Parts: sequence; C-alpha cells; structure tokens
Amino acid sequence: MSQLRRSPEEIRLPRGFSFSAVAAGIKASGRPDLALAVASLGTTAAARFTSNRVVAAPLEVGRGSLAETGGRVRAVIVNSGNANCATGKPGLKACQSVCAETAKLLSIPTVEVFPSSTGIIGVSLPAQKIIAGLPELIAAQDAGQRAVLDFAHAIMTTDTRPKLASARVQTGPAEITLLGVGKGAGMIHPQLATMLVYIFTDVSATSRQLQHLLNEATEPTFNCMSIDGDTSTNDTVLLLASGQSGARVASSRVRRRFIAALTAVCQSLAEQIISDGEGVQHVVRLTVEHARTREEALHIARVIAHSALVKTAWAGADPNWGRILAAVGRSGLPIDPARVRIFIGKQMVCRDGIAYSFDEKGAHRDLAQAVCDVRVQLGRGNSQARFLTTDLTAEYVRINADYST
Amino acid sequence: MSQLRRSPEEIRLPRGFSFSAVAAGIKASGRPDLALAVASLGTTAAARFTSNRVVAAPLEVGRGSLAETGGRVRAVIVNSGNANCATGKPGLKACQSVCAETAKLLSIPTVEVFPSSTGIIGVSLPAQKIIAGLPELIAAQDAGQRAVLDFAHAIMTTDTRPKLASARVQTGPAEITLLGVGKGAGMIHPQLATMLVYIFTDVSATSRQLQHLLNEATEPTFNCMSIDGDTSTNDTVLLLASGQSGARVASSRVRRRFIAALTAVCQSLAEQIISDGEGVQHVVRLTVEHARTREEALHIARVIAHSALVKTAWAGADPNWGRILAAVGRSGLPIDPARVRIFIGKQMVCRDGIAYSFDEKGAHRDLAQAVCDVRVQLGRGNSQARFLTTDLTAEYVRINADYST
Repeated sequence: MSQLRRSPEEIRLPRGFSFSAVAAGIKASGRPDLALAVASLGTTAAARFTSNRVVAAPLEVGRGSLAETGGRVRAVIVNSGNANCATGKPGLKACQSVCAETAKLLSIPTVEVFPSSTGIIGVSLPAQKIIAGLPELIAAQDAGQRAVLDFAHAIMTTDTRPKLASARVQTGPAEITLLGVGKGAGMIHPQLATMLVYIFTDVSATSRQLQHLLNEATEPTFNCMSIDGDTSTNDTVLLLASGQSGARVASSRVRRRFIAALTAVCQSLAEQIISDGEGVQHVVRLTVEHARTREEALHIARVIAHSALVKTAWAGADPNWGRILAAVGRSGLPIDPARVRIFIGKQMVCRDGIAYSFDEKGAHRDLAQAVCDVRVQLGRGNSQARFLTTDLTAEYVRINADYST
Repeated sequence: MSQLRRSPEEIRLPRGFSFSAVAAGIKASGRPDLALAVASLGTTAAARFTSNRVVAAPLEVGRGSLAETGGRVRAVIVNSGNANCATGKPGLKACQSVCAETAKLLSIPTVEVFPSSTGIIGVSLPAQKIIAGLPELIAAQDAGQRAVLDFAHAIMTTDTRPKLASARVQTGPAEITLLGVGKGAGMIHPQLATMLVYIFTDVSATSRQLQHLLNEATEPTFNCMSIDGDTSTNDTVLLLASGQSGARVASSRVRRRFIAALTAVCQSLAEQIISDGEGVQHVVRLTVEHARTREEALHIARVIAHSALVKTAWAGADPNWGRILAAVGRSGLPIDPARVRIFIGKQMVCRDGIAYSFDEKGAHRDLAQAVCDVRVQLGRGNSQARFLTTDLTAEYVRINADYST
C-alpha cells in the first residue's frame, strides 16, 4: 500500500442485503445510534470476537445464536452509545428482548438476529428506547448506497467519519461483491477482531468455509494494528454471505480470488480505523524484520507500538530512535542491541545499536507526514511482521479524560 | 502511608560523605549538570541496575568496577543531560576517561569511581566538558546540607524538584543515619531499580550484606511503581555504607531496624519520584487483592497501570470503572469477571463484575485529589500487591513530544 485509505471508496453493493438507521435517543447528542442490516433467506455467517475475558452481553448472545443455528443470520441489529457490557443478567435480558422484538417484526427466528453494541461500559442498555425505534428502522430498509452510509454513520462513537470498503471479483460468469462496514476510534488493539466490522458478500459458502476465510483475512489485518493497546470488550467481526452471486467458494479458483478481496477489504477498514483513531495525527507503518519467528517480530512490534514515550515522540514527529531502541531492550526477549538497526522513512538512523549519521530534518519531515514507515531489524533471523499503529497526542488524552462525565 | 511525601523532609547527614555540583555545560539550559559524592576510605557498596537489554555505558563500567573491587566505592560522578547510552565503544571510552580523570584528581583508584548518566539516548557524551568541570567540582566538596541539595539538583532532568529522604536509627550507643537522593520524571517503570537513586549510610556492612538489604528494600518500593511503563536503559540504585556509625548490620537487631529504615527511605523516594512524574496531576495507589499469588496481583496491577484508557480517565478524575474492568479482562489471566470488585476511594463502584450503585460525585471528588486509592479484588485467592502509578495527561504528551528537537 502506498497511501492509507482514509475515506470510503466507491461503494459496491452485494446482492441480498438491505440497510437502515435511525436515532433512537441512546446518544445524548441525538445523532443516529441504531442500525439494521437485513439478509436474505439462506444467508450464512461466521464471526470472530474479542479475546478480552470481560465480554459484553451482545457477544454472548450472538456467539450462542451462531452456535445454535450453525451459522445462520437474517438480521444484524447494532446500537451505538452504550456497550451493554458489565451489565450482568439485566444486560443479557435487555439484549435478548431487542433481538426478540426485531425478530417478531421481521417474522424471522430470534436466534437469527445478531446483536452488537458499542459505547460506554457499565451502564444499563435502554432496551425500551431501542424497541420503540424498531418499527421506523424496519420501514426504512433499503438496498442502496444511501442506506449503507446511514448504517455506517449510526454505528460510530468517537469516529469522525464512516468506514467502508468494497471489492468485486469476476469469476467466469459470476461476479462476487464484498462490502465491509466498520467503526473504531478508541480501545483499539483487537485480539481476534476489531471493534465492530460487518462484511456483506453474495458469495455462496458454508458457515465453516466462511470461518476459515475470516480467520485467514483478519490475522494480518485487524490483528496487526493498535491505537492504544486497550482491547475492547465488544470487538466483533461478522462475515455474512447471501450466496446470490451464484459463485461458490468451494471452487479453489473462486476461493483464491475471494480471500484476496476479503483481505483487501479488511486491510482497507483497518487503515481507515487507524487513521481515524482518537486524536491520531500520525499513522506509523511499523515493520519488524530479521526476527527468529513471526511471533517474536509481532511481540516486539507491540512493545514499540504501546510505548508511551515512543508514541509521544511520534506525536512531535521527533526522530528519537533511542526510545525505540529502549522499548526493544525492555521487551523481555534476549535481543543483542549491537545487532539492532532502525530506519525512519528511507533513512537508517541507528546502526548496530548506536547512532548512525542521518539527516535529522529529513527524518523529522518524514515523521510529520500523515503516514510514515518505521522499520526495525533485530539481526536474529528471517521472520518479519507488519503492524499498523499511531502516535499518542494531547488530543487523545482530552477525548478520553472526559468520556462518561 | 496517609499522604504522599512530595518534598524533601529534614535532611539527616550520615558520617563519611561529602557532596558537590557544578554546571559543566552539558544541559543547554546552563543549569547544574555534574554532581559528585566522595566517600571515606573503607566504604562498601551494592547496586541494582536496569533489566533493559539496552544498557548505558556508565552501567557497564559501574557494574564491572563493583565486581572488580568486590564492592568498594570512593566516589560517585553523575552527569545529567546525556544518558551516554547507545553510544558504542566511544561512549564506553568517554565514561572511562571521566572516571580516570576523577580518580587522578582525588588520588584514588579508577575502579573505585562509580559513574552515572541520565538524559537523552544516542548522543555522544561530551567528556571534555565534564573533565574541564572536575577541578571546580572537587574543590567544592562539602559535608553539609547545602552541598547535598546541590547534588540533588544537579542530577535532575525533567524533574521539577529535588528528591531526598533520610532516616535515623538508634541502636544502643550507636546512631545510624541513612540519606537517599534520587531523580525520576519519565521512562519510569523500573525493573530492578529506579532511574537514579543513591543511598548513603554510615552503617558498617559488607558489600554482600548491603546487596541483600538493597534487594529486600527495592522490591516493594521502586519495583512496584510506574509512570509510563517505559523501563529506562540507565536505572541505577546505589547503596554506600561508610561504617562510621560503628553499628554493624551483622547484628540481627541492627539489621531489623536498618532494613525498616532503608525501606522507608526507598518508599519516600518512590513517592517523590511518582508525584513529580512528567505531567502527573493525580497519583493512584493501586491495590490488587484476592489474587492467587503476589505475582498475579502484580501482573494485573501493571496491566491497569499501563492502560492508556484507564490513565486518561484518571486524568479527568473520571470514575470510569468499566475501563479498569476491561483492562483486567485483557490481562491474559483466566479472570472470572463475575467475581471482580472495584473500589474508588472508600466506595465500591463495581460488584461482581457489574455496576454497583455509588455516589458518582463523591468518586469524582476522590479521584480529583492529588492522591487517590483504587482497589481491585479478583476473587481468586488471598494474595495482594500494592502499586504506585499516575494519570496520563496532555502535559505528559507535550513534554515528551518535544524532547530531542
């Protein structure tokens, strides 16, 4: 990728889905906060959820429903403004009543309604407000671009822009379309999934096939990014396949082209989420090379990406490579500093653990760009990992120092 | 402790030491940046150093000298403004030449000069400036309070105030005095020691005895605190004993009283370092209880203390316990959220993983104090750990976004 994708690209619409959104009064701002996607009969699904031990009510309900139906979903109901997490049995009941009411109005089984919530933790979900908004929400369903954009806006919290990515794959006579919609902004260090991402496609696949594809596509994308190192309790990626394109992933040629398109959609959403992170001024594409294993490279990338001192230096576009080296040194791995090299942009700034003569103003200019490459070589082996991360700015602190009050 | 110690207490002076400081021109500000402590003949020493794999030149030199002499130190030479880290062989040579010149002027062996440096990483140490300042520094030696304060000021970097703590122990006819001087401010998450701490005492002890005492005293103090989770490459705690009080730690009664005093001096310096951390507005005394082991409690305390979202909530005195619960949940330990309780000040705010009705304004007021207690119970066992940490403020970002440029 030469440049990060910050805004929605042209939106391509897979067959078999309709969308809508309303303002149900959950957000104090009065902005849209309730979104619905309806899938046609026969749609299969697979999902990945947060690795956090504290899991929000909708994730428990959604995971249970997917298991019960063997991966069938007919509707996705999402509210923003309230995470419905750490809300105990009343939270579970509130989520179930929203699913039941949605199912009743759509005349589908309750277990085929997949729920999501995002927002503040520990506050009761106002289920009555959501239920009161359902008739208008269901009436507004539409398969067009405007409805997709409404859906994307209504799932936002501190995001400043909607996040969409789509792709089209031609396979013989059939044409497969993929459409991803996501939201991010904070508490972003997914371990299995990012905050909320829905990917709609009209390929034909079993739930089991979808799960394999989703695992493969999320590992190098959503699992290799971090804004603040905090893993959300609500992270969800859901992949829905209506089958209406007629193309089946059982064909290895279709599968190969589909996974490439799916990974590209995930990567685009990951880049959009990162570049719209809370208070983010600079995105850093971090590469850790010459590691013994990919796991080792990823571990070092995470230590660097979560160092407050490294991230604040990036906020000032400060080519302070000493902080990067110090972070590598405290990673717990038996690194030999005398083999470490660090590059900012295209320049080597640290060679074999010590300062390397470089153009400081040029490095400062590189870091001052919206996106900059930082590369760390460990001198231990041939494995590498790429990781997408951000600076830590005073604006991030301002946003998060005043959230619930 | 009922209140954190923020400023130097009355300074008590152990027998056998003299101090001085000058401005050698290492700091661009022109402030004092070179400090000396001279110890009387027969002084024994023990030290703890950073666990970072990237280690500054003075630590390599100091560690080697202590091993070579079996723990004898006659002089401590400290510069601020430059860490002499990631400076390769030239950095080692610069450090050795400073030690050699100090030794020559004091007529002592070079291996009995213990060097320290603190400041920016990766920039050559201006050894000639330091050497040029040595005659004035040595001439200024004095055993009085003013000289100790000069020493404490000269080792500061972004610290806003000097850090001193002292204690006196009466043991029969003998009176033992301990005096600790430290500096902190950023890159504070010591793993073996804090940034730079020197403890002078006139007890009589072998280097081996001192090492045991120092390990015991630093574990619950300097090793249980964090400002930003970044472990410095230069962390050093040095304990020097002149023996001039006549009291010997070989006596178990003296040992018992001495370790209590030593731990109190370390704890006071830890509190001073934390409350003067970069941009710190609120100090949080974190207690993790009902863990299976102390290690488990400490691990959870560190995850909470290093969560950007938790620390920014504290910056806003926001009683957002959901972020604390989410941090516990992503700790990697098999926590059962339904057994977790969280207290802010004296109030329970989360009971068995869900919201507990509490006075939000009261919790906000508690968190708005300079020091607040936060307690997390895991419901897994009987072990606990205390951890001293801070909020993450926009001021921290400002300080660290513009350091080397």
